[in-house]
Amino acid sequence: MSDRSSAILDAAIAVIARRGVRGLRVEEVAAEAGVATSLLYYYFENRNGLVRATLDHANERAATKAAPNHRSGREAVERALLSELDEGAGVRDTSVVWGEVLASAVFEPELRDQLRAATRTWAELIAGAIREGLDDGSIGAGVDPDACADRLTALVEGLSARWLAGVVEREAAQAMLAEAIAVELGRPDTGRT
Amino acid sequence: MSDRSSAILDAAIAVIARRGVRGLRVEEVAAEAGVATSLLYYYFENRNGLVRATLDHANERAATKAAPNHRSGREAVERALLSELDEGAGVRDTSVVWGEVLASAVFEPELRDQLRAATRTWAELIAGAIREGLDDGSIGAGVDPDACADRLTALVEGLSARWLAGVVEREAAQAMLAEAIAVELGRPDTGRT
Repeated sequence: MSDRSSAILDAAIAVIARRGVRGLRVEEVAAEAGVATSLLYYYFENRNGLVRATLDHANERAATKAAPNHRSGREAVERALLSELDEGAGVRDTSVVWGEVLASAVFEPELRDQLRAATRTWAELIAGAIREGLDDGSIGAGVDPDACADRLTALVEGLSARWLAGVVEREAAQAMLAEAIAVELGRPDTGRT
Repeated sequence: MSDRSSAILDAAIAVIARRGVRGLRVEEVAAEAGVATSLLYYYFENRNGLVRATLDHANERAATKAAPNHRSGREAVERALLSELDEGAGVRDTSVVWGEVLASAVFEPELRDQLRAATRTWAELIAGAIREGLDDGSIGAGVDPDACADRLTALVEGLSARWLAGVVEREAAQAMLAEAIAVELGRPDTGRT
């Protein structure tokens, strides 16, 4: 990706974090990025093309920050999921973009393929870490990696939405998630039930 | 509540289900309800007042439909939560209203008190059913009613958002929720771990 299109997508993340997808105007993103509006259309075709590219860009930006070193599969699951509720403007902006695309897709079917693919990629990442934990014995033997990853990622989305909406504090949401992970992954080795 | 204000709120649910909170225009709700726009301002003061009243109305409408008969606390939990992902236009509309108010509250702090209160009421209802299940032995003894209710209701919101956004089918979301409830509530009597 060129520096300029990357700068445009960073600007789009900032605008969505401020006003939401439905408040996003292409002109404001162009102004924020310091480029001509026509360049946005050149790169992203239309407004929905920009929103879709912004979702991917936000996910890529977030993925680069995920720590690669972990001592066990369980720790990899915990770190990957809990990092979605870390403090810092970057995490918050990415969460707002994700939540906004999800909420907008209810009314804009054009966004759904992108969202479905992004959700699948994320769930597969978590399922992979769960499999690693089953192999190294850090996760209980009764756990179904794919089903468990689906539930935990859906819970992250639910908690993230509550946090961003001011229903719960970020720290409380993170503690709730940590407890849910513990319930889902069971005790090491011995299995869940 | 008067018949007229109730009709206005039914109309507001329909409009939000069609266009979202951010696409809601007071004039369209008035037209849908067949009343003068001034009457909406008389009853609800402003647009945000209307949105807040619509959230409560949707929740009350949904609550009336929850079946009061159940054989155990566990069944009460299951039925109350799974009904949020039932088929039928009424369930879908209520879910859209809830998801829209949640997503809008990120940008409109005026909506937050209402949402916080509604979330608390719902979680307390589920926590009460969990306590009933602990008493009648249908829910494992290690379960913390309040924490478990918070996690399960947040998961319902996450799954509901995925369903409405077309990321998962409704039936699949409901099956995921049933499995999550089973994991959370543990085996009857014997406790979770």
